[in-house]
Amino acid sequence: MIDFELSLELKNLQTRVRDFIANDIIPYEKDVRCERHGPTDELRLELVAKARAAGLLSAHMPVELGGLGLNHREKAIVFEEAGYSPLGPLAMNIGAPDEGNMHLLEVVANASQKERFLRRLASGEVRSCFAMTEPDGGAGSDPSMLKTSATQVGDQFRIDGVKWFITGAAGAQFCIIMAKHADGEHVGKASMFLSEMSAPGIRVERMMNTLDSLNPGGHCVVRIEGLLVNASDVLGELGQGFRYAQVRLAPARLTHCMRWLGAARRAHDVATRYACTRSGFGKKMIEHEGIGFMLADNEMDLHISRLSTWNCAWALDQPEASRAISSITKIIVSEAVWRVADRSVQILGGQGTTDETIVARIFADMRAFRIYDGPSEVHRWSVAKQLARNA
Amino acid sequence: MIDFELSLELKNLQTRVRDFIANDIIPYEKDVRCERHGPTDELRLELVAKARAAGLLSAHMPVELGGLGLNHREKAIVFEEAGYSPLGPLAMNIGAPDEGNMHLLEVVANASQKERFLRRLASGEVRSCFAMTEPDGGAGSDPSMLKTSATQVGDQFRIDGVKWFITGAAGAQFCIIMAKHADGEHVGKASMFLSEMSAPGIRVERMMNTLDSLNPGGHCVVRIEGLLVNASDVLGELGQGFRYAQVRLAPARLTHCMRWLGAARRAHDVATRYACTRSGFGKKMIEHEGIGFMLADNEMDLHISRLSTWNCAWALDQPEASRAISSITKIIVSEAVWRVADRSVQILGGQGTTDETIVARIFADMRAFRIYDGPSEVHRWSVAKQLARNA
Amino acid sequence: MIDFELSLELKNLQTRVRDFIANDIIPYEKDVRCERHGPTDELRLELVAKARAAGLLSAHMPVELGGLGLNHREKAIVFEEAGYSPLGPLAMNIGAPDEGNMHLLEVVANASQKERFLRRLASGEVRSCFAMTEPDGGAGSDPSMLKTSATQVGDQFRIDGVKWFITGAAGAQFCIIMAKHADGEHVGKASMFLSEMSAPGIRVERMMNTLDSLNPGGHCVVRIEGLLVNASDVLGELGQGFRYAQVRLAPARLTHCMRWLGAARRAHDVATRYACTRSGFGKKMIEHEGIGFMLADNEMDLHISRLSTWNCAWALDQPEASRAISSITKIIVSEAVWRVADRSVQILGGQGTTDETIVARIFADMRAFRIYDGPSEVHRWSVAKQLARNA
Amino acid sequence: MIDFELSLELKNLQTRVRDFIANDIIPYEKDVRCERHGPTDELRLELVAKARAAGLLSAHMPVELGGLGLNHREKAIVFEEAGYSPLGPLAMNIGAPDEGNMHLLEVVANASQKERFLRRLASGEVRSCFAMTEPDGGAGSDPSMLKTSATQVGDQFRIDGVKWFITGAAGAQFCIIMAKHADGEHVGKASMFLSEMSAPGIRVERMMNTLDSLNPGGHCVVRIEGLLVNASDVLGELGQGFRYAQVRLAPARLTHCMRWLGAARRAHDVATRYACTRSGFGKKMIEHEGIGFMLADNEMDLHISRLSTWNCAWALDQPEASRAISSITKIIVSEAVWRVADRSVQILGGQGTTDETIVARIFADMRAFRIYDGPSEVHRWSVAKQLARNA
Repeated sequence: MIDFELSLELKNLQTRVRDFIANDIIPYEKDVRCERHGPTDELRLELVAKARAAGLLSAHMPVELGGLGLNHREKAIVFEEAGYSPLGPLAMNIGAPDEGNMHLLEVVANASQKERFLRRLASGEVRSCFAMTEPDGGAGSDPSMLKTSATQVGDQFRIDGVKWFITGAAGAQFCIIMAKHADGEHVGKASMFLSEMSAPGIRVERMMNTLDSLNPGGHCVVRIEGLLVNASDVLGELGQGFRYAQVRLAPARLTHCMRWLGAARRAHDVATRYACTRSGFGKKMIEHEGIGFMLADNEMDLHISRLSTWNCAWALDQPEASRAISSITKIIVSEAVWRVADRSVQILGGQGTTDETIVARIFADMRAFRIYDGPSEVHRWSVAKQLARNA
Repeated sequence: MIDFELSLELKNLQTRVRDFIANDIIPYEKDVRCERHGPTDELRLELVAKARAAGLLSAHMPVELGGLGLNHREKAIVFEEAGYSPLGPLAMNIGAPDEGNMHLLEVVANASQKERFLRRLASGEVRSCFAMTEPDGGAGSDPSMLKTSATQVGDQFRIDGVKWFITGAAGAQFCIIMAKHADGEHVGKASMFLSEMSAPGIRVERMMNTLDSLNPGGHCVVRIEGLLVNASDVLGELGQGFRYAQVRLAPARLTHCMRWLGAARRAHDVATRYACTRSGFGKKMIEHEGIGFMLADNEMDLHISRLSTWNCAWALDQPEASRAISSITKIIVSEAVWRVADRSVQILGGQGTTDETIVARIFADMRAFRIYDGPSEVHRWSVAKQLARNA
Repeated sequence: MIDFELSLELKNLQTRVRDFIANDIIPYEKDVRCERHGPTDELRLELVAKARAAGLLSAHMPVELGGLGLNHREKAIVFEEAGYSPLGPLAMNIGAPDEGNMHLLEVVANASQKERFLRRLASGEVRSCFAMTEPDGGAGSDPSMLKTSATQVGDQFRIDGVKWFITGAAGAQFCIIMAKHADGEHVGKASMFLSEMSAPGIRVERMMNTLDSLNPGGHCVVRIEGLLVNASDVLGELGQGFRYAQVRLAPARLTHCMRWLGAARRAHDVATRYACTRSGFGKKMIEHEGIGFMLADNEMDLHISRLSTWNCAWALDQPEASRAISSITKIIVSEAVWRVADRSVQILGGQGTTDETIVARIFADMRAFRIYDGPSEVHRWSVAKQLARNA
Repeated sequence: MIDFELSLELKNLQTRVRDFIANDIIPYEKDVRCERHGPTDELRLELVAKARAAGLLSAHMPVELGGLGLNHREKAIVFEEAGYSPLGPLAMNIGAPDEGNMHLLEVVANASQKERFLRRLASGEVRSCFAMTEPDGGAGSDPSMLKTSATQVGDQFRIDGVKWFITGAAGAQFCIIMAKHADGEHVGKASMFLSEMSAPGIRVERMMNTLDSLNPGGHCVVRIEGLLVNASDVLGELGQGFRYAQVRLAPARLTHCMRWLGAARRAHDVATRYACTRSGFGKKMIEHEGIGFMLADNEMDLHISRLSTWNCAWALDQPEASRAISSITKIIVSEAVWRVADRSVQILGGQGTTDETIVARIFADMRAFRIYDGPSEVHRWSVAKQLARNA
């Protein structure tokens, strides 16, 4: 029956994460190792060590891999708390792209691959990346435009192509590469390939300069030329790449919602505190309806974001989950939290555009959320097509 | 724990109401007795008889009063289904203002008052009205501006004042009147008084012409001059009028959300069907992204309205409910369902502005929802004040 | 050079119209002859007589036809003032559909047709209608779906079809009918035909119930069966119907903008006056930022509507006018004035939804403006196509 | 009379500036001297030399100071073209804060001050800054909260205080300082003081990290301790500081509108080109209505921004200009161009958040425009107060 209560256990976990973020992580936000393209790996390992010590690492992974074995609803609570600091998900090893990669490996990888790739990723020792998106009219919002090719060469596959927006590529230990078969039985279909980033044939060409500075390793252009991948490093079945991308995306989309909800709450809290202490034109800023109404709108946007996220998490916890709800949730949350971030900047005035508070960083980091994992427009289109089918 | 599942029992009830509305009520929407100011009482009694026969009357009332004894979450399901037709809540005796009046009487009235007023109201035999709002700078969004006076005359109270927007006054059996004590112990405080509408001293002066045509008895100007009310017809304790108004409003606000959600879903369904069958510029209208995106936005607005309503219903089902959530919910839902109605009109094109479909009526009926029971602006203000207090 | 000054002459005309509307027309707004489907013709003739007496009739017509011979910019000023009352354009004979029909006849009709049809229309003696839109998947936003047929029968054309949303049909003297050739040289193309409404073969089947009550003769379903039209009553050249529809629409669209701008200004003025006199929660309503900001937004929406309208009028006054600007202007103005009407309702609170003020009527009358003469969606599409062509 | 035509002379100037920006300035956008906090002074001087050679320097200054002596409408045309590149206003010496400072000096400074300060500023040799805004509850949106003090010390004034958001302070030659008299005849009133930045008592404490990277010298915290200013360096009359701030602001606000309009047009052009060349889901992106509608909305927002800017420029060109129009214009334009920038990012997808195009930079640079020179909220408040006064 309809219920919004958290179990006592979950409330306790929520409090633990909240305290951990407040006490152990937020102080690092001014650390000089938070660089232009993201935190350094040195900083990342230091943060991960703290989360490990606090027993808060890799919450979405099974206990046997060192995680907390949470279901989607539990993750909704924990990831929101983690997202309260831009460094929180990194510390707890539940940030993009690793979190989604872990999920994908858990569902699709075979035992040996799990041992070789997933275990060390879940432990927080190493980072990974996911190489799908391409420049120059290749795979993007429309993944079917994939240009990177996989050609059979004896027992191996030879991969060639250029990828970009490969988050975390610089410094990643390994990569999951999406490529389209140029020959053989699966020609025209896509598969996923696992490869160490140190393999000959992979080169991080450059880091892209982006609005955000969220991820270690930034967002990179990766050139793949003549990379040879063994059959044993094919992830899952051949030709199932597009399907696996969805396996990865539906929950990955939702964990983004969870984390960004936390970030938006943070921005709102900073703005509220400011409006409650700073005065102008003869009264506290929050007493100006013009400001108070914006904060009320923030409250509402956080409310619908949280309810939508919980609802979608619940849906994904059910045996047969629908994809439509993940599209709807992604649009609702990405647009609502953006409004919150934007209003919070506005309320802070000039300060809101500087790093005097964390709000400007949240604002800049968050802009891409309305685009990645499917822009709002693609999801609206997909909702409409669903409607047309059901009619 | 977070759950969005309905019990099997509730699902069955949902289906029963859905079928009842579709089969028994919607055919009446074109009935000529749906007049300019609302359905006639003859039509109302005919519809009520159908709901009674279907065992679907007064769902929010206890079983001993002929109701179904539903809690708020159960009401959320049933009222949404009822609201799918503008005539649904009327048929099922769960429309404003009677539904809120029943709730108020149930909580505040004494046994004798319940017997005399509540029983026949719950049975659907009669209608009632609630006389709070006043013209000319009296009680409105700010109830403290109440001008109608109650003066002690021996054992009785003499009531004088003018009320307007008194929904359902014409044809109502009795009235709950809000007045401010002009003398005595409670001077300056408000009380609620029960009175038959046939009492000397009450006169329905005129019906107001409004955008909506939802309620039997329309919205009236009611003049009260020298009305004498016995002490036994004081509702609850003297001087507690404003508090009781809140007792009535918090759930009444939410039941509006439930019903209008149903109405918005109806408008959306009509628009979707139209967009799926009608073509223009070479393809089905829904295949135009411009239309499809509007329908997707409808889906989202319905989704957040439903989730917010359920969440608030759940909160009201808890022992200690907060008022803030009812303010937030009222803003979210009233604004979201309005967007749905407006988009549905737009999608239907010229037809959307006519009574060729039910959508124009829903649109016109719904406009006031962003105003009554507290305009969006008053609720935003109240949310902001809450934030300022908590900071 | 960029200039926003009005000539002294035009300012004087503006003042004359403003005074005329305030003194002679607004008092009629409560006249009982303002009926559900629009003012009666008796009322119309009474109002027209007043405008004639004031020398303010048919401002857009040449002087030799009794008009004032205004160009588009001059019309922008005069029509805005006329639109300040829903009855103003009717009185001054510059309302839809007659105003657009006069323009079309002036440009396209031959001398004999002008004598027979335009002269009496320009004088305000009679009304006309324009029969293009069709039910059941015929001509609408996409005029090419026209189903009404014209078949050659000797020297005459036989017209068959059903039209709806034919504004002013009941009581109109004559009609301009759009039909598609079913045979002959122009098969598949459209032509316009003039016919007296009293001709055998034309029947006003019913009046549609719409949100608005703006036009005498309402909006009608018109059945045309076996109507015979002489070659001399073909309007302009055969096969040019769609082109003529554009000749009519581009300026007609803009005069709608002008009139509705006046109506929106009226709603805003009523709301401002209310907010400046009515108090709540301890101060004048306008002193609440929540209200004051809405009024400021109204000011801005009126400002951009006026500037856009003037700009488009100026463009139409140039030798080679572009169509794109009329699309852009129609979207901007129809959406901005709607926001003004909606906010004005909201500010007035409950009253805003009644006929205690003129605002609810303006609100209900105005809703269709975002739909007729091309819904916002069709115009956005057309702007995008233009962009694609220019790129 | 209403006119939107540009003089032939102005059109020619427009073309010259457009070509200059396209050919001489845009190539510099990738110059490494465009650093995190803004272009270096070396780069600035190189760009200024180009504009000087092209005869396009300091367009708003009188000819005798090396400018083009443009009025506000002419500036509207030229500044929009300049703003098409973030480096354009810098090159042409018409960017903030120098442009506003030149205007202020021209209006208020005496002959000697003009010689010493304005001449070299107008020539583009040096930069200046304007020190009004303060941290910690000092002057901001509400300038009356000014805390920096001016104390009489013999013939001189001693200035003490902290300023922040002082755009261009690092590397500026001189500064206009706003301070409040702590004693003497003008106690409690504000004056403006001119000082070389090299004067003892002024120290650029640090550069603030902001979203934008528009201005050489960034945005700085400036500490003023014991700065002594001679009476001859008081700008204008003592005690008139707040009034002079308005003298500076009204046109400065509008020149911001002009420049940002150019920037928004640039973002829109880039997005349009992208949508016209890149495909997805089987067709050109612009052929997807979801994208096409966004571009149409951009067109409309640019249109209303341009019309509002021209209208306000015209108003400022009249003998008695009203302040209200500058408030309204600032809100309209700052919010409309922001929507354009945001949509342009969205259309570009992932790329939109990187420096692969200029759009992300325009987006980040522009965010503060809704805040500085009066946030939207302060201007809405001021429009509402104006309405209340006029009622």
